[in-house]
Amino acid sequence: MNRKEDCIFCKIVNGEIPVSKVYENEHVLAFLDLSQVTKGHTLVIPKNHEENIFELSETTIEHVFKAVPKVANAINSAFDPVGLNMLNNNGEAAGQSVFHYHVHLIPRYGKGDGFGAVWHDHSSEYSTDDLQLVAEQIQSKL
Amino acid sequence: MNRKEDCIFCKIVNGEIPVSKVYENEHVLAFLDLSQVTKGHTLVIPKNHEENIFELSETTIEHVFKAVPKVANAINSAFDPVGLNMLNNNGEAAGQSVFHYHVHLIPRYGKGDGFGAVWHDHSSEYSTDDLQLVAEQIQSKL
Ligand SMILES: [Zn+2]
Ligand SMILES: [Zn+2]
Repeated sequence: MNRKEDCIFCKIVNGEIPVSKVYENEHVLAFLDLSQVTKGHTLVIPKNHEENIFELSETTIEHVFKAVPKVANAINSAFDPVGLNMLNNNGEAAGQSVFHYHVHLIPRYGKGDGFGAVWHDHSSEYSTDDLQLVAEQIQSKL
Repeated sequence: MNRKEDCIFCKIVNGEIPVSKVYENEHVLAFLDLSQVTKGHTLVIPKNHEENIFELSETTIEHVFKAVPKVANAINSAFDPVGLNMLNNNGEAAGQSVFHYHVHLIPRYGKGDGFGAVWHDHSSEYSTDDLQLVAEQIQSKL
């Protein structure tokens, strides 16, 4: 397992910092986010230190996303929310504050429950040709 | 492949509605979200109709999340954003508007770029014992 000295999530994996564990296997740990943006707000992380979605190895992806729907279903059964958001922030500008990959599972209980998305529709600014060009720019990097 | 008559994403998979495709394989399709919340905003969907994270089969999970980091990396290479959010909304109350599973990849370019998260910290409302109880309620459903 790859560890990083000053990483709070690596310390949690090592048992140096106590958390409320929800799920654990050889490769993955799920525990409550202290901020409890909504009740049951859980983080799923790989035990291996990988910073963000751009760095994830194929095996880590497999382990994390095998656990994510499992934990989401358990949250759903436990609290019967009206919805659930899965969110992963990569980079400080995207809201990442701990630089060890993690997926937020945020059960939803209705408006004003603690979470929401700011969402600006920019469709009027793109013609079909513009969109095609954007798509091609991404395709060229695949 | 499971199809649903009135599902707009099933129609996109079938080629009945044109989109700007970014990536495609036997099981998965990625295309630009028309709303382009930020430039390069892409959806990754399974070709099979499954409604949400609670319904995803293990094989679908594997296919979708093999593609997600691949497409995220291509977006990153194409536009060099300062961050990227991965978001999946399950249930209308969580912002889901098309009921065919999809993952949003939203590259970020700084404040006011079109996307943001409303995030209320409720940590002061939970004691360690409260958190332990919440964790146990989820564990009991795993
Ligand atoms: Zn770490
Ligand atoms: Zn569908």
